[in-house]
Amino acid sequence: MARIVMKFGGTSMAGSERIRSVAARVKREVAAGNQVAVVVSAMAGETDRLVGFCREASPLYDPREYDVVVAAGEQVTSGLLAIALQAIGVPARSWLGWQLPIHTDDAHAKARIGEIDTGALDASLAAGEVAVIPGFQGVTDDGRITTLGRGGSDTSAVAMAAAMKADRCDIYTDVDGVYTTDPRIVPRARKLAKVTYEEMLELASVGAKVLQTRSVGLAMKKNVRVQVLSSFTGEDAPMADTLPGTMIVGEEEITDVERQLITGIAHDKNEAKITLTAVPDKPGAVASVFEPLAAANINVDMIIQNIAHQSAGSASATDVTFTVPAADLARSIEALNQARGAIGFADLVHDTRVAKVSVVGVGMRSHAGVASTMFTTLGARGINIQAISTSEIKVSVLIHEDETELAVRVLHTAYGLDAEEAA
Amino acid sequence: MARIVMKFGGTSMAGSERIRSVAARVKREVAAGNQVAVVVSAMAGETDRLVGFCREASPLYDPREYDVVVAAGEQVTSGLLAIALQAIGVPARSWLGWQLPIHTDDAHAKARIGEIDTGALDASLAAGEVAVIPGFQGVTDDGRITTLGRGGSDTSAVAMAAAMKADRCDIYTDVDGVYTTDPRIVPRARKLAKVTYEEMLELASVGAKVLQTRSVGLAMKKNVRVQVLSSFTGEDAPMADTLPGTMIVGEEEITDVERQLITGIAHDKNEAKITLTAVPDKPGAVASVFEPLAAANINVDMIIQNIAHQSAGSASATDVTFTVPAADLARSIEALNQARGAIGFADLVHDTRVAKVSVVGVGMRSHAGVASTMFTTLGARGINIQAISTSEIKVSVLIHEDETELAVRVLHTAYGLDAEEAA
Repeated sequence: MARIVMKFGGTSMAGSERIRSVAARVKREVAAGNQVAVVVSAMAGETDRLVGFCREASPLYDPREYDVVVAAGEQVTSGLLAIALQAIGVPARSWLGWQLPIHTDDAHAKARIGEIDTGALDASLAAGEVAVIPGFQGVTDDGRITTLGRGGSDTSAVAMAAAMKADRCDIYTDVDGVYTTDPRIVPRARKLAKVTYEEMLELASVGAKVLQTRSVGLAMKKNVRVQVLSSFTGEDAPMADTLPGTMIVGEEEITDVERQLITGIAHDKNEAKITLTAVPDKPGAVASVFEPLAAANINVDMIIQNIAHQSAGSASATDVTFTVPAADLARSIEALNQARGAIGFADLVHDTRVAKVSVVGVGMRSHAGVASTMFTTLGARGINIQAISTSEIKVSVLIHEDETELAVRVLHTAYGLDAEEAA
Repeated sequence: MARIVMKFGGTSMAGSERIRSVAARVKREVAAGNQVAVVVSAMAGETDRLVGFCREASPLYDPREYDVVVAAGEQVTSGLLAIALQAIGVPARSWLGWQLPIHTDDAHAKARIGEIDTGALDASLAAGEVAVIPGFQGVTDDGRITTLGRGGSDTSAVAMAAAMKADRCDIYTDVDGVYTTDPRIVPRARKLAKVTYEEMLELASVGAKVLQTRSVGLAMKKNVRVQVLSSFTGEDAPMADTLPGTMIVGEEEITDVERQLITGIAHDKNEAKITLTAVPDKPGAVASVFEPLAAANINVDMIIQNIAHQSAGSASATDVTFTVPAADLARSIEALNQARGAIGFADLVHDTRVAKVSVVGVGMRSHAGVASTMFTTLGARGINIQAISTSEIKVSVLIHEDETELAVRVLHTAYGLDAEEAA
């Protein structure tokens, strides 16, 4: 007997037919002798509808009342799945965030989960009941409803799995696992059987939108084994026996045989490049560039400082280039222009037609040459590298947006990731 | 300074524009120096939508989970009204049934309100906050959500008013008050300034669908002054300054000058007449007719036992006629036919083309002749009376359905209720 958390997203909960399919899938895990808690999202579109109501009521809505409104979506699907389970002979009950309770801080609309009481839940599971738990919601110490921010149901599922000491947290999504890269770009992309938390974090944060980043971080911290697998065999088909998905695990669970040098290639077109020209080359000058951005809560990613150039008779100066999320470009420009006097740059040049392409893999820790293979491969196809950043398990380059797909394809081949047949 | 409960129904909460109108109406009461709690329904149509989901999930749904699902409708409007109030500068917060809490028994889907804790609420009101409270919901002692049954928000409002010791409970509805009779039938019907609890109970239970009957009974028991008034000046117009509605009060609040012999004329076409012929005229025979109906939880209303007739050489027998709600007719026939051996009737005849017309008024307690005026008036127009029932403050007759409007009109005139001009 194992303890399993199963999490279903909004597409899986969209309508009675699909809720019945989910119930049937849950029943199979129960029939296999497992104790099961199910974490559910609101019906697809419902959270948007509720958020829309709040905005109509007031653009500057009180986040405490917003949480009361939007938490209703998951409350509805929790009750409905409990009913659907009972209808096929599976004892089940819903446990709302305040009923367990799932304690959170009081950062309404973006709360963080603290402790989860599992006393009552454990008794219910031991009595053979399936627990149906709304994702995305919790309760503050003073008894007010909170929500975790959009996509928070993945985090709820992982937090429940940690609190329940579950053997596995199965996240059912629109995709059937994590691939070596986007199969729409590389038809020969392979589904990964296993990926480490750290790799998943890098893959998620650079564009593989399978799991909410925060949920992966929490899984790593709490050592929860997460499986990503598909809720659907086709667009509207009822769920058939599920194919194996991708297990997200600690590095120690990856055997030497399984370990690859590179696990996957990610890309992200949502970056913007900013260059400040002729920044005075003196101590503290570069810090003065990034302070106003940090104050505006803008996340700076890749940074390059060009070689200082010196004109006759003037102080030396340098160009500073960096990337920010494209959505924050306008705010970044505003913050930098306001600090222009303090920084002392000549011009601000920006470009949104850039993309970040990253090769990711824990294997590169023990292998040199990953970066040079990347640069050589891109150079051979005439792809110009505008910036580079590296971490222990990742090398990222900034290139022109139009060359993204080409870069991903040639790197996928160069690192030996192509499957024998198209996915 | 007064304490006021304001209750708004689903039509008033249907959409952001209307919620803003409600907020503006609430603001006027706050500006007048009152402490205000607002009880809200779900958006019009929303409860039906949620009930529909439950039925689709399973026709035999668990009422505990049904309550989790349908309570979400009022949760949403509570949060939205709190946001809309804050947006116009009125401090406000929502209090869900489990947050106050509003204790109920555990008769899920038709729970009854017990105690309501008002400690936290009192502090919030004293601090100048408007309390927004979802109608229709409460919580059991073991922390599960309950609902009160359809239309329960009126009851929630009256229960809140009683618990808060409110000076008044204003129920905003689609109509602008209680009339002497249905103005669609009698254009000269008059709006009543005051009506007693008992009269309102009789008027509500016989067809004046203004307030849920249970809420009136509770108001009488707890001596809550209830005012019925209109949320709208027109179909979609924003709420203008509200016209005075109808106050529902204890009999002691009606002065002698205000007291009428007859307060109103009600009618109800949702009755069905059943006649059992040749029931043996012996002790216990009539009881045997009503036992199976009581066992099936069917409410029998008017009862007439005709004069016994005796055929030569046989035991005497009698015809028994009574009415049941038309919706329960099929079940009634089934229950009676199953008990046919025990009752021993010859034939079962039924008729749904009947209507009950009632004259109601506390004044008739001290005046004879009310019933005879009714019979004379109807008789003069050739309207045949099929059954009669009376209470201290009501005389009802059963007539042919086609004669309903005629009967209501002639009685309205006969008792001097016609206004000078059409309503």
